[in-house]
Amino acid sequence: MVIVMNVGATAAEISAVIARVTETGFRAHLVEGEERTIIGVIGDDRKAADPELFNLMAGVDHVMRVSKPYKLASREFHPKDTIVPLNGTGVGGKKLAVIAGPCSVESRTQILEAAHAVKEAGATALRGGAFKPRSSPYSFQGHGEAGLELLAEARAETGLPIVTEVMEPGLVPLVVKYADVLQIGARNMQNYALLHAVGESQHPVLLKRGMMSTVEELLMAAEYVLSHGNGRVMLCERGIRTFETSTRNTFDINAIPVLKQRSHLPVIADPSHATGKWELVNSAARAAVAAGADGLIIEVHPNPEEAWSDGAQSLRPETFAKLVREIRRVAEAVDRTV
Amino acid sequence: MVIVMNVGATAAEISAVIARVTETGFRAHLVEGEERTIIGVIGDDRKAADPELFNLMAGVDHVMRVSKPYKLASREFHPKDTIVPLNGTGVGGKKLAVIAGPCSVESRTQILEAAHAVKEAGATALRGGAFKPRSSPYSFQGHGEAGLELLAEARAETGLPIVTEVMEPGLVPLVVKYADVLQIGARNMQNYALLHAVGESQHPVLLKRGMMSTVEELLMAAEYVLSHGNGRVMLCERGIRTFETSTRNTFDINAIPVLKQRSHLPVIADPSHATGKWELVNSAARAAVAAGADGLIIEVHPNPEEAWSDGAQSLRPETFAKLVREIRRVAEAVDRTV
Amino acid sequence: MVIVMNVGATAAEISAVIARVTETGFRAHLVEGEERTIIGVIGDDRKAADPELFNLMAGVDHVMRVSKPYKLASREFHPKDTIVPLNGTGVGGKKLAVIAGPCSVESRTQILEAAHAVKEAGATALRGGAFKPRSSPYSFQGHGEAGLELLAEARAETGLPIVTEVMEPGLVPLVVKYADVLQIGARNMQNYALLHAVGESQHPVLLKRGMMSTVEELLMAAEYVLSHGNGRVMLCERGIRTFETSTRNTFDINAIPVLKQRSHLPVIADPSHATGKWELVNSAARAAVAAGADGLIIEVHPNPEEAWSDGAQSLRPETFAKLVREIRRVAEAVDRTV
Amino acid sequence: MVIVMNVGATAAEISAVIARVTETGFRAHLVEGEERTIIGVIGDDRKAADPELFNLMAGVDHVMRVSKPYKLASREFHPKDTIVPLNGTGVGGKKLAVIAGPCSVESRTQILEAAHAVKEAGATALRGGAFKPRSSPYSFQGHGEAGLELLAEARAETGLPIVTEVMEPGLVPLVVKYADVLQIGARNMQNYALLHAVGESQHPVLLKRGMMSTVEELLMAAEYVLSHGNGRVMLCERGIRTFETSTRNTFDINAIPVLKQRSHLPVIADPSHATGKWELVNSAARAAVAAGADGLIIEVHPNPEEAWSDGAQSLRPETFAKLVREIRRVAEAVDRTV
Repeated sequence: MVIVMNVGATAAEISAVIARVTETGFRAHLVEGEERTIIGVIGDDRKAADPELFNLMAGVDHVMRVSKPYKLASREFHPKDTIVPLNGTGVGGKKLAVIAGPCSVESRTQILEAAHAVKEAGATALRGGAFKPRSSPYSFQGHGEAGLELLAEARAETGLPIVTEVMEPGLVPLVVKYADVLQIGARNMQNYALLHAVGESQHPVLLKRGMMSTVEELLMAAEYVLSHGNGRVMLCERGIRTFETSTRNTFDINAIPVLKQRSHLPVIADPSHATGKWELVNSAARAAVAAGADGLIIEVHPNPEEAWSDGAQSLRPETFAKLVREIRRVAEAVDRTV
Repeated sequence: MVIVMNVGATAAEISAVIARVTETGFRAHLVEGEERTIIGVIGDDRKAADPELFNLMAGVDHVMRVSKPYKLASREFHPKDTIVPLNGTGVGGKKLAVIAGPCSVESRTQILEAAHAVKEAGATALRGGAFKPRSSPYSFQGHGEAGLELLAEARAETGLPIVTEVMEPGLVPLVVKYADVLQIGARNMQNYALLHAVGESQHPVLLKRGMMSTVEELLMAAEYVLSHGNGRVMLCERGIRTFETSTRNTFDINAIPVLKQRSHLPVIADPSHATGKWELVNSAARAAVAAGADGLIIEVHPNPEEAWSDGAQSLRPETFAKLVREIRRVAEAVDRTV
Repeated sequence: MVIVMNVGATAAEISAVIARVTETGFRAHLVEGEERTIIGVIGDDRKAADPELFNLMAGVDHVMRVSKPYKLASREFHPKDTIVPLNGTGVGGKKLAVIAGPCSVESRTQILEAAHAVKEAGATALRGGAFKPRSSPYSFQGHGEAGLELLAEARAETGLPIVTEVMEPGLVPLVVKYADVLQIGARNMQNYALLHAVGESQHPVLLKRGMMSTVEELLMAAEYVLSHGNGRVMLCERGIRTFETSTRNTFDINAIPVLKQRSHLPVIADPSHATGKWELVNSAARAAVAAGADGLIIEVHPNPEEAWSDGAQSLRPETFAKLVREIRRVAEAVDRTV
Repeated sequence: MVIVMNVGATAAEISAVIARVTETGFRAHLVEGEERTIIGVIGDDRKAADPELFNLMAGVDHVMRVSKPYKLASREFHPKDTIVPLNGTGVGGKKLAVIAGPCSVESRTQILEAAHAVKEAGATALRGGAFKPRSSPYSFQGHGEAGLELLAEARAETGLPIVTEVMEPGLVPLVVKYADVLQIGARNMQNYALLHAVGESQHPVLLKRGMMSTVEELLMAAEYVLSHGNGRVMLCERGIRTFETSTRNTFDINAIPVLKQRSHLPVIADPSHATGKWELVNSAARAAVAAGADGLIIEVHPNPEEAWSDGAQSLRPETFAKLVREIRRVAEAVDRTV
């Protein structure tokens, strides 16, 4: 932490800051510049009291953090890539994960048809929502446990592991019984009670970036899960909210190499939500693979026009099959496999 | 809903869209323009299947909604202002609510001292967090039920009603026992399980806008609570996330008159979070009152330098007292009282 | 400037950075922390080579600036408020400036009618565009010099000084002949050739914040003008672009006290562009005055339904007269006058 | 254009709107819904008076545009890809353009060294700034015409065509004498006087998206140039400003397929500005190619640590050579060539 004093801060003000630094168990190191003095605070930023507090002291201009606020999620402290087990191989190595399926589990026919189709096209896991966060209370909210049972049946038939969302702490034990991976949705990225519960579960987690969250906040959310001893976390870039309205979200493709640089955790991209339009999904998926993603999660529906949710961004099975063929070529061009 | 066809859409494509509209229980009304055809869909947009689905049909350029997706929260359907009962008077009428207190309940001394101080300065309710959403798992997370008990004690001593946050559905019954108003924090604005639970509770709710949520999404979140028969909802503008970094958030002052125009629910402003810096809180509070807010929620701490959270944006009691005097003058200038 | 080294940076890397600091004419000051070393760079940040360059050196994690990049615009170096002369009194003192008039000069009748109406309602200057930046090449681009002549006629009749936009460096001499204040539009805030030209002109300048520019960038744009010896600059907050779509822009009300804190230059608010909807202008104007603005610039048109541009955000003369009465009350509540 | 009336709009209000539509030369088409009436306005939206005007009429809720505001830039009206001539082949076909070179022309040695290096690595054009838009008036502003002469020398030596920025209308004739492509920088995307001047020049244009501009606004800026009969326009996605701070800008990768879908103009990506960090440029460049970009513009400097500007995002020649090898593989995977 570095405390920047005002131009013209008095000796008494500087002394008071130094005294406060010392009181809180740190050491202060004075740097007198031409215009102003800065004070280096020696110790672990993460353990410090809110660094912002020094802002309140007379003569302080502003305070800057030096360290990243996450540690367990950080590559600095864990240089080696984490591989999260999934479907035999694992996510985070040379082979890309391809998670595909409908937004919601709608019916037995629909989910089984989707599961067989994505399996045949090359998917390595099945996605499908039994509990759905919907912005309108009047929209379909998911089939709940009945939906989980249908997912289990789809797994039994196809062998594909299941990725499905859990929305409240109280339901984690139920979802764990059916799911291979617990998905934390974008709206719940900072639902700390939920992060706590999935951390405790020790189950693999797919953590989606909030549409309003920075890369650092995503890593802090991962830190929550990791701090409960659950290291099996996959990060997911799914687009952020910006001023641009031609797509549902703005796909922050930069986040992929940034996350790979800062963290050892695998990074999955969600081109369906990142674009919101099925006709853009293929381009975005190819871009994600080229940028270094460790996998993709893609919405596929046997019949998008009939989908109960997210139809506009869902691929038909044959379009998805084409996408898999195309990303395979791109993957090879960056020394990965599908 | 209006479906805009492509320039050059064929008669067959137009017919197919009309057939689909009819199938889903609506009536189609054709408007043939010079360049292209548009199709008005007659019926309640809110009941329709995802309007985006028509985007998938051949020949469709895009689809535009006509109606607002919320109804119970809408002034269009409920022209008269809602008054939420609080501390005798109620929020939403001529008299402004002034909710004040520390970010977190830290100790008995701290909360009692804060409660007496804000009461004396003119506050009409006490805020204070017993359950704290913190972006770091290593930060103080609140005292939980012990904190609620201290709040109850502060109420007993001062007579001020209590506004405090609830973060998970399972804890709603506990918090209801102590709190006069349940606060839903910005990070939980779209935590639907929680909205459901506070809706069911029939307890007054202070619903904070998500830092990256639109006004419409805030009203949709309110609709969730209202749809459970709980009409006692206060909306809270607390700043949004933008590219600007000189303040913690960007205070969307426009949202105050927009919410008052679109909804009958009272609107509270939170100048502490909206600025993140105590020295800006007074200006922002005056602006909120001048713009038409029905109340303020403000962080006050007996000793901000010692605060366990949000110290940088907390006012000292004497600064808060000055603020109350100043907003009283502004309130009178817009025919309100404090 | 502070250079933060990686955890585990080697002594050789640290030495190389220190050598580089010294080479570029600065002094390096080492602070060895528990986890990592940081290096304070002593000297004027503004004179330094791009501080980002150190980022490229082996072992460097990141670089943080200490000083603000502007100096002439800074209150730190010029504590006293600047008063820009306008219409006898001046802008930046106790009395608020009220600049009003139509978006564009459309006709002799229109501008004279508008000028008389705003004068009568209490305006202290007349605005009106002769050169119009329009996002479509097919829209009305302004009457050019003929428009300036009509503005001069309006000034002759009413005595109101003229505020009008200049869009290209080559036209500055022409506009200076007619205008009392040169307005730099939001889209041109970083048109450096234009800033240079208005700086050279020594004419008063109203500098509008770019819709996606930070407060710091606005101050840097002012620094451009000031660096040419022209100190008569008024800053203008006119709303920024965010994800919110219920208003044309998001009025960054926080920017008003932030600018007053960081700079000695007067701050004008533009509630017309900041909201984009006439029915919100009054609330936003009151908020701006309550937050500490030194003046307002407001679009008023004798007949908004017939306006050639910005009709939706223009007030009728009688609505403007009501606004002036209302802001007068708010101004008094914050010890200012209109 | 579609005019949406309020719930409960009166017959008189509806009639008044219809009358106004007819007056302005359009035809009105009434659609009576269950809740409210909407009015289709038949005619060319682009020719209409500001559609927002109808918002001012009694009983109108809001107005929605149906058509895109651009026409010459639109693929709807010009389905075939435009190929802009450059270096023999042209941009927009199967072969990707690779424009590379330093941010600024600093010296004869530097620009010649850079030119030879990028040529050898596979670049198809040379970039380099002689006029530099800098956010600080104290930063290096470019060598001006002397810089252009050095670029011409580099072209003479290497055969690479020159892409260089022009910042003011008065300098277009000068820059045209030296440059093969006139670059319009992000800050000038809505500098209409400049767009007019480069339109008139009939010279090829590289139009960079403003960091605050939507895809639609970029296409409107292109429309300005096209409307002067200059069809040789390349669009450039270079990152937008968002709340994310881990990179200099957020690379809007979605914009590439969106622009290709909406427009016939070639799309260039600028991974240097889109990331702001040299170590992310390679990932972003691969992603751009995979997403369908027609070319890249990349900052390369013989010695980034010594660069006078943008050093942190500039590649060394050998890193650039590696990038070209890698994007060649990705290009082949999407059936393009480098």
